[in-house]
Amino acid sequence: MSELRDFFPVWNKLNKNQQEKLETTAVFKTYHEDEVVHNGTECSGFLIVKSGQLRAHISSEEGREITVYRLFERDTCMFSGSCMMSSLQFDITIEAEKKSEIWLIPPKVFRSLMDESTAVANFMNEIMATRLSDIMWLIEQVMWKSFDKRLAAFLVEESSIEEKSQLKITHERIANHLGTAREVVTRMLKYFQNEGMVKLTRGTIEITDLKALEVLGE
Amino acid sequence: MSELRDFFPVWNKLNKNQQEKLETTAVFKTYHEDEVVHNGTECSGFLIVKSGQLRAHISSEEGREITVYRLFERDTCMFSGSCMMSSLQFDITIEAEKKSEIWLIPPKVFRSLMDESTAVANFMNEIMATRLSDIMWLIEQVMWKSFDKRLAAFLVEESSIEEKSQLKITHERIANHLGTAREVVTRMLKYFQNEGMVKLTRGTIEITDLKALEVLGE
Repeated sequence: MSELRDFFPVWNKLNKNQQEKLETTAVFKTYHEDEVVHNGTECSGFLIVKSGQLRAHISSEEGREITVYRLFERDTCMFSGSCMMSSLQFDITIEAEKKSEIWLIPPKVFRSLMDESTAVANFMNEIMATRLSDIMWLIEQVMWKSFDKRLAAFLVEESSIEEKSQLKITHERIANHLGTAREVVTRMLKYFQNEGMVKLTRGTIEITDLKALEVLGE
Repeated sequence: MSELRDFFPVWNKLNKNQQEKLETTAVFKTYHEDEVVHNGTECSGFLIVKSGQLRAHISSEEGREITVYRLFERDTCMFSGSCMMSSLQFDITIEAEKKSEIWLIPPKVFRSLMDESTAVANFMNEIMATRLSDIMWLIEQVMWKSFDKRLAAFLVEESSIEEKSQLKITHERIANHLGTAREVVTRMLKYFQNEGMVKLTRGTIEITDLKALEVLGE
């Protein structure tokens, strides 16, 4: 817990009382791969990632999913629905993609900091602006970009995150990131294989022509 | 100008100096139908709608458009790109759908208010949360909802905004709201006409079965 100060972005702009309140109320938790951190409308509070990797996604009534953004070390996120901000009216699920260590700051504590401190309020504005920018980017992708380009860009991104050319990821999981069906992913990956850009084996996708995928995904 | 105080949402939480600064720097402008208020990355500042109706949209390289949200009387909006908030990294166009009267508060003035006043900073957070919710809703629509449902919901919304069952709107304009091509709109409207839900004449769409459109659009 003593490290929260190193991860909370405007720590030095808080007074002693506020810092103490944060340190005594923040909950530190470890989530294993695929564990759900936040679900729908529940009031989880403010989240700070100490380590790991998480994804935020929405899903359709039929169970289709699409990743809205991802969280890495030092990222922060606030989606607690209307309990913290009356205008936040949507449901999102956050789950760990890898083992993740996070702090959760209770909604009432964070809300009171927002009301007391312009530094916290404006830090929140920057997070909101970041999410807004992420989501606008996503709308542009799903509206104007064909699926081959989106899949190519996703593989390039994954390979950059993992720092590997051999990706251990199922077609189902890729489909859930990109908001489509597994069959659509499989079909396109086979096309990529025919073009020499990837090599498919059971449970893995090996990128054999990163440059070509980068060009396609641009 | 004397009315800005009635439209600025946290006016009473500002001190005398701040109120004066707002009143002396805000620019009041009237935009005619179809006039562009804000374009892309330019630094327009903070916008308050006194009267009228505007839409915010993004467009593809090929010129396709989709409406991201709409603004009505008393709505506020801040999309000035990185000149005001470093994390706001996307381009949006705002244009008047009807003759509109708006105040524009210069970015530097609004930014300094955000830094001085938790009321302004948190008001900004509520606006951001509203936009985020609007855009999440839009993603759900374009991802999971078939076009017939989206068009039906759009016609119901238009008829509610205009308080009329006879809508003066071109198929091209509807296509630009919904992010599709004109032909797609025309084809679906003809289908709606065959089903007895609308009656099409030159330049107008008359809603003849609102209930059916409401059910379809749900």
